[in-house]
Amino acid sequence: MIPLSSATELPTFADVLLAAERLKPWAHRTPVLSSRTADAEVGASLFFKAENFQRMGAFKFRGAMNALSQFDAAQRKAGVVTFSSGNHAQGTALAAQLLGIPATIIMPLDAPAAKVAATRGYGANIVTYDRYKEDREQICARLASEHQMTVIPPYDHPHVIAGQGTATLELLQETGPLDALFVCLGGGGLLSGAALAARALSPQCKIYGVEPEAGNDGQQSLRAGSIVSIDTPKTIADGAQTQHLGKFTFGVIRRDVDDILTVSDDELVACMRFFAERMKMVVEPTGCLAFAAARKHRTQWQGKRVGVIISGGNVDLGKLAGYLAG
Amino acid sequence: MIPLSSATELPTFADVLLAAERLKPWAHRTPVLSSRTADAEVGASLFFKAENFQRMGAFKFRGAMNALSQFDAAQRKAGVVTFSSGNHAQGTALAAQLLGIPATIIMPLDAPAAKVAATRGYGANIVTYDRYKEDREQICARLASEHQMTVIPPYDHPHVIAGQGTATLELLQETGPLDALFVCLGGGGLLSGAALAARALSPQCKIYGVEPEAGNDGQQSLRAGSIVSIDTPKTIADGAQTQHLGKFTFGVIRRDVDDILTVSDDELVACMRFFAERMKMVVEPTGCLAFAAARKHRTQWQGKRVGVIISGGNVDLGKLAGYLAG
Repeated sequence: MIPLSSATELPTFADVLLAAERLKPWAHRTPVLSSRTADAEVGASLFFKAENFQRMGAFKFRGAMNALSQFDAAQRKAGVVTFSSGNHAQGTALAAQLLGIPATIIMPLDAPAAKVAATRGYGANIVTYDRYKEDREQICARLASEHQMTVIPPYDHPHVIAGQGTATLELLQETGPLDALFVCLGGGGLLSGAALAARALSPQCKIYGVEPEAGNDGQQSLRAGSIVSIDTPKTIADGAQTQHLGKFTFGVIRRDVDDILTVSDDELVACMRFFAERMKMVVEPTGCLAFAAARKHRTQWQGKRVGVIISGGNVDLGKLAGYLAG
Repeated sequence: MIPLSSATELPTFADVLLAAERLKPWAHRTPVLSSRTADAEVGASLFFKAENFQRMGAFKFRGAMNALSQFDAAQRKAGVVTFSSGNHAQGTALAAQLLGIPATIIMPLDAPAAKVAATRGYGANIVTYDRYKEDREQICARLASEHQMTVIPPYDHPHVIAGQGTATLELLQETGPLDALFVCLGGGGLLSGAALAARALSPQCKIYGVEPEAGNDGQQSLRAGSIVSIDTPKTIADGAQTQHLGKFTFGVIRRDVDDILTVSDDELVACMRFFAERMKMVVEPTGCLAFAAARKHRTQWQGKRVGVIISGGNVDLGKLAGYLAG
């Protein structure tokens, strides 16, 4: 089995800059949006980085593409393997397709049909497993070992983290220094990448990770000083249903992130409705975490310049309809 | 009563260019979007001008602002009056608020509460009427006469048409010449403005207006060579529930537009779902007319460069939920 990565050290801002160069031909430079209504509501100048308009609908393409584009000839030939029922599956499948690398994605038997179809649509080979009886990381390790495939996990990999950091790099290149930055937190790939970029380009900026109330393992970990693991939380923010941070993501987060905040599912739905009604955008529940926290803690940020990362827009239309119906 | 406009001649491309200068400090230059999925589905290169991201959520702000910014001192003081239950009401109210001009908007008693609230939110004075017993144009004329207010109607005014034309001007400045352009058609303000810009900047471009099947008065008018009036059509495209074109809009359309096409409400819903699912955008039913026609007539445009104007994104969340639920 080829190791997850030869890197054993935390990624740096230089890695984010290198990732940005690698991504230039492939990733969208997504817009930074503002909304007078949102500003009036929060009392701050908000800058929304709209990764819902990224290729395949979420920031995950960045990390996957940064990792896959560093494969050597043998790795390219043998292919990539990963496990995900969400946006990392599609991000990896699309990046692999663009680079001509075979991709194997391990998905639970009961994954939503639309997500399986989208991932297969990008040409990936899908391997299913029973999430109640089998361990996906074991299956992944076995497949990698048998076929010499390289594992690119959803978040805990320096190349993935550096790739995700390019979203915040682009945001800060456009806005200049900010007073605060809000980023959603699942496994920590997006947040740790954001922290690398923000600490370098806007050193005074307060950096907040935002988790669903139901699954505050990141908040617990930051306060305990070590990685805390929880049961899979029940929340509509399916991109943040992680059980624990990773060693690389936690390493950056404990060093560079100011605090971890939480919001309720109801607060996420209110934001989803705001985005649809006032900004004419579809944002998935996980993508609403950052804005929900900025709204909730508005009194602290009156008159300030605040960045908000919208992580993605991949939500089943039937579910979206339910949230919008209120 | 001050006349609708001192202009008696059709607006020209020069008027569109002048409107663009007037709008520069006020209107958003909305993005021109592309989608690999949409291109693959239609077999053409599509360029979407996203006026759902315009201020107040629709192109109507352009025409209203172009008209109001030409008021002289006496007109500014006495104010503007208009009739609309839709986007022209909000566009006029917002433009008037920004310019410090009093605005009176005549709306039916049964107008959606959200639209009345939004219009009032921009500081306009709302006058209601019973749409089954009273004539809104008579009320408007009476109010204008009594208070020396200037009437800016929703579409049939050279300044309104020139303002709406700036959306297509911006599109073509970005894309260069196109093979075809699809534009939704209600009263014809957006389509006639688009035709002025497209005939000047892309003379070979085929220009199509698109109406709901239920209300094809524009199609009938173009074929008859004179304005045909119909009963208010039953369609979800509430911005295209007009009964007839106007003398200015029809004058430009009969001269510059190649044909008028129609699409069904079901085809609009399919587009609304596509925009939400694949492009992460909220588009109102009327805003889907142009794309629905481009899709329907795709065989004609294989390999070509096609412009599609998305007119707006103002749709009640409850209704949107119903359309997305499918």
